[in-house]
Amino acid sequence: MTANAAPFVLDPRLSADTHVVGDLGLSRVLLMDDARFPWLILVPRHAGLRELIDLPRDEQHRLLDEIDRCARALRALEKPDKLNIGALGNVVAQLHVHVIARFAADAAWPRPVWGAGERVAYDQIALRVRLDALRAALCIATA
Amino acid sequence: MTANAAPFVLDPRLSADTHVVGDLGLSRVLLMDDARFPWLILVPRHAGLRELIDLPRDEQHRLLDEIDRCARALRALEKPDKLNIGALGNVVAQLHVHVIARFAADAAWPRPVWGAGERVAYDQIALRVRLDALRAALCIATA
Repeated sequence: MTANAAPFVLDPRLSADTHVVGDLGLSRVLLMDDARFPWLILVPRHAGLRELIDLPRDEQHRLLDEIDRCARALRALEKPDKLNIGALGNVVAQLHVHVIARFAADAAWPRPVWGAGERVAYDQIALRVRLDALRAALCIATA
Repeated sequence: MTANAAPFVLDPRLSADTHVVGDLGLSRVLLMDDARFPWLILVPRHAGLRELIDLPRDEQHRLLDEIDRCARALRALEKPDKLNIGALGNVVAQLHVHVIARFAADAAWPRPVWGAGERVAYDQIALRVRLDALRAALCIATA
């Protein structure tokens, strides 16, 4: 079920700040281009969504299953001290869910990552390594 | 299914910072004692939980259903510009989920509420009004 009949288009700001990991059944999975934090963003591929509760119940559950899958992948790969999961959307309105591996020694701990200092873009090799590892952990075919 | 056999005890810091709204099927619902933001916290009543993904799948879905119920109650009562939903736990380890009604004119917008300035406790009348309204919206019997 879609919120409206328009095609899904990723918000330009999300697009500019991330790299595409790949698509799960419902969500596009993005890697935030910030080498300070292992940070995934899930965007359900329906046009016009703003709130989690705009999704019908079965699709909320499906999204949560994909959040669980991404969180398990990050936990297996990064062995973080804590996972942070959140749907805020105060700046970018398009519904998106953050799944972030946090460490007691990271650049924002114990504060949230949002608004914490300046983003540090990945270099090309680190980006390739992380995207390959995430696609393998999520069983997403490499583009 | 419980994470371990110990009885559930609410984290003392969560207890100190909130008022109890009541219990849903899985979660204790708390009102953050901060009159700046209509802010609920759901705590699944199992001992030893830290991460959302520590819950089995059926209880994750049940928790999401309760998050949906709380978010709808806040939306109906407060008519916010945005809902913020998050499970962080960097400071308080016990699994808890924030559901917050946000306004473009609120004290933290567009930043997250966590760590934004000083908490402003409710006065007794405002607290009673808000708890009564929330219990009615959530169909929780008054204590």
